[in-house]
Amino acid sequence: MPSEKSDNLFLHRRHFLKLSLGTGLGLGGAFSLWQMWRDSSVSRSKTIAPVSPPPTSAPPNPMTFLRNFDYGTIKQEGGKTVREFRVEARTSPLQLNKAVSYITWNLNGQVPGPTFRATEGDRIRVIFYNRAGHSHSLHFHGIHTADADGVKPVRNNSVFIYEFDAKPYGVHLYHCHIAPVTRHITKGLYGMLIIDPPQPRPPADEMVMIMGGYDINEDRKNELYAFNGLPDYYMNQPIAIEKERLIRLYLLNMIEYDPVATFHIHANFFQVYPTGMTLTPSHTSDVITMGTAERHILEFAYPYTGKYMFHPHQDDIAESGCMGLFDVRET
Amino acid sequence: MPSEKSDNLFLHRRHFLKLSLGTGLGLGGAFSLWQMWRDSSVSRSKTIAPVSPPPTSAPPNPMTFLRNFDYGTIKQEGGKTVREFRVEARTSPLQLNKAVSYITWNLNGQVPGPTFRATEGDRIRVIFYNRAGHSHSLHFHGIHTADADGVKPVRNNSVFIYEFDAKPYGVHLYHCHIAPVTRHITKGLYGMLIIDPPQPRPPADEMVMIMGGYDINEDRKNELYAFNGLPDYYMNQPIAIEKERLIRLYLLNMIEYDPVATFHIHANFFQVYPTGMTLTPSHTSDVITMGTAERHILEFAYPYTGKYMFHPHQDDIAESGCMGLFDVRET
Amino acid sequence: MPSEKSDNLFLHRRHFLKLSLGTGLGLGGAFSLWQMWRDSSVSRSKTIAPVSPPPTSAPPNPMTFLRNFDYGTIKQEGGKTVREFRVEARTSPLQLNKAVSYITWNLNGQVPGPTFRATEGDRIRVIFYNRAGHSHSLHFHGIHTADADGVKPVRNNSVFIYEFDAKPYGVHLYHCHIAPVTRHITKGLYGMLIIDPPQPRPPADEMVMIMGGYDINEDRKNELYAFNGLPDYYMNQPIAIEKERLIRLYLLNMIEYDPVATFHIHANFFQVYPTGMTLTPSHTSDVITMGTAERHILEFAYPYTGKYMFHPHQDDIAESGCMGLFDVRET
Repeated sequence: MPSEKSDNLFLHRRHFLKLSLGTGLGLGGAFSLWQMWRDSSVSRSKTIAPVSPPPTSAPPNPMTFLRNFDYGTIKQEGGKTVREFRVEARTSPLQLNKAVSYITWNLNGQVPGPTFRATEGDRIRVIFYNRAGHSHSLHFHGIHTADADGVKPVRNNSVFIYEFDAKPYGVHLYHCHIAPVTRHITKGLYGMLIIDPPQPRPPADEMVMIMGGYDINEDRKNELYAFNGLPDYYMNQPIAIEKERLIRLYLLNMIEYDPVATFHIHANFFQVYPTGMTLTPSHTSDVITMGTAERHILEFAYPYTGKYMFHPHQDDIAESGCMGLFDVRET
Repeated sequence: MPSEKSDNLFLHRRHFLKLSLGTGLGLGGAFSLWQMWRDSSVSRSKTIAPVSPPPTSAPPNPMTFLRNFDYGTIKQEGGKTVREFRVEARTSPLQLNKAVSYITWNLNGQVPGPTFRATEGDRIRVIFYNRAGHSHSLHFHGIHTADADGVKPVRNNSVFIYEFDAKPYGVHLYHCHIAPVTRHITKGLYGMLIIDPPQPRPPADEMVMIMGGYDINEDRKNELYAFNGLPDYYMNQPIAIEKERLIRLYLLNMIEYDPVATFHIHANFFQVYPTGMTLTPSHTSDVITMGTAERHILEFAYPYTGKYMFHPHQDDIAESGCMGLFDVRET
Repeated sequence: MPSEKSDNLFLHRRHFLKLSLGTGLGLGGAFSLWQMWRDSSVSRSKTIAPVSPPPTSAPPNPMTFLRNFDYGTIKQEGGKTVREFRVEARTSPLQLNKAVSYITWNLNGQVPGPTFRATEGDRIRVIFYNRAGHSHSLHFHGIHTADADGVKPVRNNSVFIYEFDAKPYGVHLYHCHIAPVTRHITKGLYGMLIIDPPQPRPPADEMVMIMGGYDINEDRKNELYAFNGLPDYYMNQPIAIEKERLIRLYLLNMIEYDPVATFHIHANFFQVYPTGMTLTPSHTSDVITMGTAERHILEFAYPYTGKYMFHPHQDDIAESGCMGLFDVRET
């Protein structure tokens, strides 16, 4: 925590510091008050010593990640379906390209973290082990009590259990909420939570894409971007899909520092289900603007075979790693 | 005006000036033409010497401002309800935090200016006294004649009367439109205009939040941000609301220099009424992207007690002052 | 191409280069892979030597451009209406204001390129001559085969024919897709494609506005902006429209480097038809946020005569050239 605190005080807003405020009293004051509130209200009663090792497995590559959904371990408790997820915060390097190895803060060694999936009405229990070396947390977007809101730090080598009902259905997300949140997100601590409607959506080739940015040199700007963690991965390894097959894309923008990113697919249009919280599309387009933490379901099918790009239409972002290809093949 | 003009010529687009255009002919030319058009078409007939003192009162703090609506002085004229608002442009310091005192251009000594409120079909009359030391104006978003559009400068120590019909219902705004508009807005000359539908919306705990940015060191970037004028105010003074009570939030983004800001509430979702110009929500989410001058009505109710954050999910903006807490309490 | 390639390698992401990666292997690697894929999959069979001169005519000024639709040369082939468009990529200077002459990459000597217009169900054939001095392409937004997707470079002094069905109706666009796309768009190689629904929309005063940015000093930021190519043009030459006449505005944001721009009209509201892909408006507002390549149909009518501004409400963009006036006159 001391190093995070000093980050906040001295690196917080570069331009502001040009004012020569010296000790950064202004922003430091705000930070301290927020910390005071947080510390006074934190209930650490659920923080326990580690009792069982979290699952370890090789982190999926972006192609495996794309269609990989973690449904958790299912338990029945008092007539309710409980889905239990065990994850571990870690600090580990990620080879972003031939030249750049980057230290990530991540879940289970992977960026993004696993895609949790449940059905509306289930109970979700996330057992969060922190072995990353300093405090982290998991803040879920969704409806839950203040205790499960994930703004309280979970210290290194401790465990916290987040528990809440899976509602309402939609495409949601989780991320670390330790200040500075920009840094904890950019370092890789985020992922998707899909809550399916009670009546499942129609069959489709379902996939997850999360747009992220990497601030390699800590200048509060991103130098590299990626779909699902690795820059340009899907340019080298196009995503094979079938002609005329319905694609259901769960799309999330987790890029910090850039205020928005659009998403564009070539040679086609998609139907938009805003935040995935509806069963009828709101409109059709081939470009959609998404602020940080916005997410949607997009549906489309390709009528012709061939390779087609997808990327944000802020082409600066696209050409710095956030670019990929669909390889549309005959059925 | 001379100092504003030179601002425009010499500070306008820093990077452009690196071209060493010397006298800034390019942009200066555009500026001069705009000024020529403006000056030639300005009708100053309504500009009169001050006749009565504007109301003076202590500026509200953000907590008072939050639920404070100015319905004006009601008059009946020719069978029509006229709501008359008297406001005064001033120049005065605002203590943004312990370290920073900032000279604002404001209405009645407060940033944001008062929230004007009327019902569709009323006549709105805003008597605008300028005692700020240099030219200002009030440009209203809404339907009105060119004369009432507020792009004409109102000189120091003069008065201008803006008058128009309150239509259509929605969440609207006003701001100074003197060039550079970025600066006049960042300095604090803006506020909200709510026009209620003829049939009032259902009862709710109604509140106003306006996101603003402060460019302290005039580098055309914001160093501090705030809800309702004061950075981090609602972190220190959480907004008390009742559990399960419908909240109707009139939300406006007035941040310049950052192209958009999102708005996010923790542990809940809101229904969106775009620009407040509809009685049925368009969709549900917990993050919404808003460009400068965009505004919406958001409705939600918290099912659990406790403290919950709200902030833009461009976390850089949030962590520089645009962050607050709801304190949800038992009824 | 060599100069473009080195652009990409050495100018690509300035901040990234501060890492002293030397040969730029990281991003260079991605670029090379993308180029390898492109080169291996390019079918150049349709690239032929120029056979006939493209049409030459004086480029329209923004006022002519505003309401100028290119319906192409109509042919009947196998019972189908084919609209044939002949365009030529050129390199030529454009006088942006009194001080700045800028070398553009353009179609037929004009920025933006011509507004192509067809009816849903037509066949579109674009015969693209490249006489600009280096490679370009035309990437259309819409449904088409991979071959017609326009990501393949068309070399200088060669011809490529893009052909596809005009569907679905909406406001679409085209732009050069040679890397870096940011640069090829900023230099001026873009335009609009309108596909009308089979049943035409109601009569209206129809006009096209495309927001663009100019990166004069190649710092990956825009110093000047424009509606329809020329900064501040419509401030000097207001657009005359009739009072109470329905205006149908086909609006496209092609600004690179700035992630979004809003569009705002004074003293009025517009109805929004997202991406022009619907016959019923989605909502009403006076400010709309548009990411790069987003486009909509906006409809409105002015009830009062006079001059009214329109501009993005990122006022920094407006005050650097993206600003204009409607001059509303009695019928």
